[in-house]
Amino acid sequence: MNNHEAIGFIDSGVGGLTVVKEAMRQLPNERLIYLGDTARCPYGPRPAEQVVQFTWEMTNFLLEKNIKMLVIACNTATAVALEEIKAQLDIPVVGVILPGTRAALKATKNNRVGVIGTAGTIKSLAYETALKSKAPNTFVSSLACPKFVPIVESNEFHSSVAKKVVSETLNPLQLKKLDTLILGCTHYPLLRPLIQNVMGSHVKLIDSGAETVSEVSMLLDYFDIANTPNYANEANEFYTTGSAKMFKAIADDWLNLETITVEQVRLPIEK
Amino acid sequence: MNNHEAIGFIDSGVGGLTVVKEAMRQLPNERLIYLGDTARCPYGPRPAEQVVQFTWEMTNFLLEKNIKMLVIACNTATAVALEEIKAQLDIPVVGVILPGTRAALKATKNNRVGVIGTAGTIKSLAYETALKSKAPNTFVSSLACPKFVPIVESNEFHSSVAKKVVSETLNPLQLKKLDTLILGCTHYPLLRPLIQNVMGSHVKLIDSGAETVSEVSMLLDYFDIANTPNYANEANEFYTTGSAKMFKAIADDWLNLETITVEQVRLPIEK
Repeated sequence: MNNHEAIGFIDSGVGGLTVVKEAMRQLPNERLIYLGDTARCPYGPRPAEQVVQFTWEMTNFLLEKNIKMLVIACNTATAVALEEIKAQLDIPVVGVILPGTRAALKATKNNRVGVIGTAGTIKSLAYETALKSKAPNTFVSSLACPKFVPIVESNEFHSSVAKKVVSETLNPLQLKKLDTLILGCTHYPLLRPLIQNVMGSHVKLIDSGAETVSEVSMLLDYFDIANTPNYANEANEFYTTGSAKMFKAIADDWLNLETITVEQVRLPIEK
Repeated sequence: MNNHEAIGFIDSGVGGLTVVKEAMRQLPNERLIYLGDTARCPYGPRPAEQVVQFTWEMTNFLLEKNIKMLVIACNTATAVALEEIKAQLDIPVVGVILPGTRAALKATKNNRVGVIGTAGTIKSLAYETALKSKAPNTFVSSLACPKFVPIVESNEFHSSVAKKVVSETLNPLQLKKLDTLILGCTHYPLLRPLIQNVMGSHVKLIDSGAETVSEVSMLLDYFDIANTPNYANEANEFYTTGSAKMFKAIADDWLNLETITVEQVRLPIEK
């Protein structure tokens, strides 16, 4: 059965665009709607209850647009809100933590896996719990990197400041003998070259977002809600609660899609 | 939520063991129950209605064992019976065709994909339909290989006869400029070195069964029915409608598990 409705993506800011970029590649037939809560980014340092509330507000915004599937393309929100939202919606809801966990366990040879993420994600122990429950013998080393998201959101991820911050922050992971590192925040793939450089080429970086798209692809088939005809990418919609101009600058740079239009919206939506 | 029940696998014979082998690797915590309908193998040349009936008989055998998920590890059965069985069971049901399709589309660079399978699978056009609906520009070349399953089931897949049959059968595919070939029958990975040799190293072989296990892994998480503690592999159960001895010989050879026990059963089961 064809389903022409869109797949919805939510994130605290622009980070989820790394997931959308992969979705556009793997699922060219699908229409995508993205909402980044840039005005209230970062979510990482916020209390869990507040992140849950904001995530519901984003979810409700996309439900009004009749999405057929929801991707919580934000690790912080996945860690604290996925279970509740998945239980209450009647469309499939996908988070980014389990796909990243599965990919890391598939990749590691020495069972030593690192996880970097926001303070909220690391504090939730979501990756650690998932890794240990699947493979109890895994050594897990987690590190919060609170400075990374602001660097990406301010579009400074190519700067020399970014290089210095990434190097200093990841320093504690250097001696852990990791062979796999989970980028446990959808903003981090924009810092990928810097992270790879610090960790060394022998460490496999796991992009949770890219893995998530494979899960989306499977679920579209499993629930028989994939779209068949080709949609032009122009049909995709991008919304932000912050500056549309700043959002578009990063989206253009990262998605290489200079034609996208970004609309600013307010949350919560007025009924 | 932990779920200690087993995952069930059904196949027309021993072919599905290639899927079980991958499941044992990727999902070491899970208990597996396998039923091969060796006595009535091959399914490939049989009428679709009969394959549907046999597949239901195998399904009912496993349902009596309280499986939590069913894997139709047989392309012929997936092609004709998956939809009906999935619609009627209240546990997740997974086939092998869509995972193979997704993997092939991910792998191909020149959009020229070959599919080999039993007469039943090829006649159903299941792969061709799935490939074209996801990527209409794909050139698909399909070929029925009715001699392959009997070679595997008679444990002759290492023989010089096997080499000759594989070479002659695949001859028509040589000039199709394929860069990807779907092994659209779970028996075929046992002939993999011979097939690779004939097709050349530039052709990527897609093992639908291995891809299917990634889908199983994802669905265990999605429906929150994975098992947490480690199960010893001895807890796995293997059944065949044919010779337990012959089945065990292939299982030992292919799974490298000399400790498994195989029990012969009759279908349909008496209520």
